[in-house]
Amino acid sequence: MTGGELQRYLHEHIPLSKAMGAEVVELLPESVTLSAPLAPNINHRATVFGGSAAALGMLAAWSLLHARLRTARAASGSAPVRLVVQRSEIHYERPIPGDFRARARLADPGDWERFLAMLERRGRARIAVDVVLESNGEACALMSGEFVASRLDP
Amino acid sequence: MTGGELQRYLHEHIPLSKAMGAEVVELLPESVTLSAPLAPNINHRATVFGGSAAALGMLAAWSLLHARLRTARAASGSAPVRLVVQRSEIHYERPIPGDFRARARLADPGDWERFLAMLERRGRARIAVDVVLESNGEACALMSGEFVASRLDP
Repeated sequence: MTGGELQRYLHEHIPLSKAMGAEVVELLPESVTLSAPLAPNINHRATVFGGSAAALGMLAAWSLLHARLRTARAASGSAPVRLVVQRSEIHYERPIPGDFRARARLADPGDWERFLAMLERRGRARIAVDVVLESNGEACALMSGEFVASRLDP
Repeated sequence: MTGGELQRYLHEHIPLSKAMGAEVVELLPESVTLSAPLAPNINHRATVFGGSAAALGMLAAWSLLHARLRTARAASGSAPVRLVVQRSEIHYERPIPGDFRARARLADPGDWERFLAMLERRGRARIAVDVVLESNGEACALMSGEFVASRLDP
């Protein structure tokens, strides 16, 4: 899956991502970075609306797991999975003053193999993703999300 | 402030609220209820995108405090304040299957007088808001937000 494919998927299936102007900056095995402009996400104080920051963070976290699961499935031929967010938390450290980015990584990269093994064995597994929201290279908010994957047996 | 005035304010100053189709259902001293349709907030599984749920919850929580602070200021003639979200957390209990609502209340209604007194004395105070996200009368997600108000001295 390329960054362009991911962006088309998001815009097509999650229309709010298009309304927000979300774009894929970088899609790597270890991180996904999305960007969004200030204008469609502005608030009454001319900074980024907190709900937009949370939504871009959620898109980045979901995209990271979605892309990694696709790669793992392509390699192993295992069944498709349903990926659902269960909990997320965001700490706003300072106002986000302009165009912004969300970079998602696994909270613990060493957790991935355990996650896949559990998904294979039990049909259900949980994993945590950390997201940094930044603007002009400065971190403005930190988000963490917990996702549950369930194997969709045929 | 009426529900219609609040809705115009949100649509004008936070354009994402308009893109989401957010509407004010009820604006009471003790709670604010917003609604949004599924279509602009749908995800790849044809349920509500988690980021949309978090954003509607944030709008409801902010609106409750904004409206209460306006009323308090009108009564006391005190200085305007800046209201900023500092932290929020959301637990998704089940997929949100259709049009949905966010109802915000103070986490502890007894906290309001302490909050206003602290804002008056120290120029800065913190308060927590709880939000229930529901669809078809069923609670689907619970959100909590912590906000900080700062007096804007002339």
